[in-house]
Amino acid sequence: MANARLRQQLEFIVEIDKLKQVFRQNLLIDGSRRENDAEHSWHLAVMACILQEYVDEPVDLVRVLKMVLLHDLVEVDAGDAFCYDEAANLNKSAREAAAAERIYALLPEDQRAEYLGIWQEFEERRTPEARFAACLDRLQPMLHNYYTYGGTWVEHNVPLAKVKKRLEPIREASAELGEFAEELIRDAVARGYLHEGG
Amino acid sequence: MANARLRQQLEFIVEIDKLKQVFRQNLLIDGSRRENDAEHSWHLAVMACILQEYVDEPVDLVRVLKMVLLHDLVEVDAGDAFCYDEAANLNKSAREAAAAERIYALLPEDQRAEYLGIWQEFEERRTPEARFAACLDRLQPMLHNYYTYGGTWVEHNVPLAKVKKRLEPIREASAELGEFAEELIRDAVARGYLHEGG
Repeated sequence: MANARLRQQLEFIVEIDKLKQVFRQNLLIDGSRRENDAEHSWHLAVMACILQEYVDEPVDLVRVLKMVLLHDLVEVDAGDAFCYDEAANLNKSAREAAAAERIYALLPEDQRAEYLGIWQEFEERRTPEARFAACLDRLQPMLHNYYTYGGTWVEHNVPLAKVKKRLEPIREASAELGEFAEELIRDAVARGYLHEGG
Repeated sequence: MANARLRQQLEFIVEIDKLKQVFRQNLLIDGSRRENDAEHSWHLAVMACILQEYVDEPVDLVRVLKMVLLHDLVEVDAGDAFCYDEAANLNKSAREAAAAERIYALLPEDQRAEYLGIWQEFEERRTPEARFAACLDRLQPMLHNYYTYGGTWVEHNVPLAKVKKRLEPIREASAELGEFAEELIRDAVARGYLHEGG
């Protein structure tokens, strides 16, 4: 038998496969279907590598990557709450904390502590790594909405002010990416994907 | 307008979304559907973080992560060739090289050279990072096959000898993971998922 530590790690690796079946609101860029959390997390990880040069404070890229790869893992138990659905976001923190306790406990103790800590750091958004992860987590769905003719903004008739509020973390991590996001929003308004009144 | 460099990088980020629609042979662990390349790449990246301690030679984890995140990107153009399908693997290298030339050229020149180099390093499997990436790329589908009652081994009646050959890169990167893989194969034979004669 392989050692007990490796068995625990593999149990975690098998468990997280479920993230491939947690579907988000936003569509793929080709518009064919909704995106799942594993795909979304993969996309953020690639974006972290490609866009690292734009962060305003230096970041530890490995920590950012571990963070974005697993930032939505709690949704295996807690589900995806659409960011503009206030009812679905009630009690979300408590549900996600319980999910984190269960899922990370599959790992050996040292890794349980490490990854639970990284997830909590992401949630608190107080370090440069967490701010960059949040920036990417807001930027990516915005690109998807833009390239799917408004996507979930149109589908749920989301008001411009709410979208602008939602995008603030982009500027908090990177002035340059924040400027890009504002341009894209202006263009989305010009194209009729977003409206002042909702 | 955001700077031209950022525009190029975002064009790449939009293009790679297509990897979410390149489907592999192996099933998700719940057996419900085939897995796509983006999900597979995400899974390898998490495995790289969790299993790094088992590599026999030290690795640069950032390089491994960049490698596994994009190792299958060429399949956006070249498609997924099932590893046990010899006909589908004819000319695969040439098709993939052409795909890499096209897709990485979307990036600014410095990043084009970096990521094309990382992909070529993965293909050549001569560095510790590339050996670890190959190890994960063989281990993950093996786990999926095991947990789906034989999965593509059963579906395509793959002979045990071919599976053993396919798993050699696991041992080349990590004696411990290699030992685990051998145990899993023995167990797969005992459960009737794999047969000596095919």
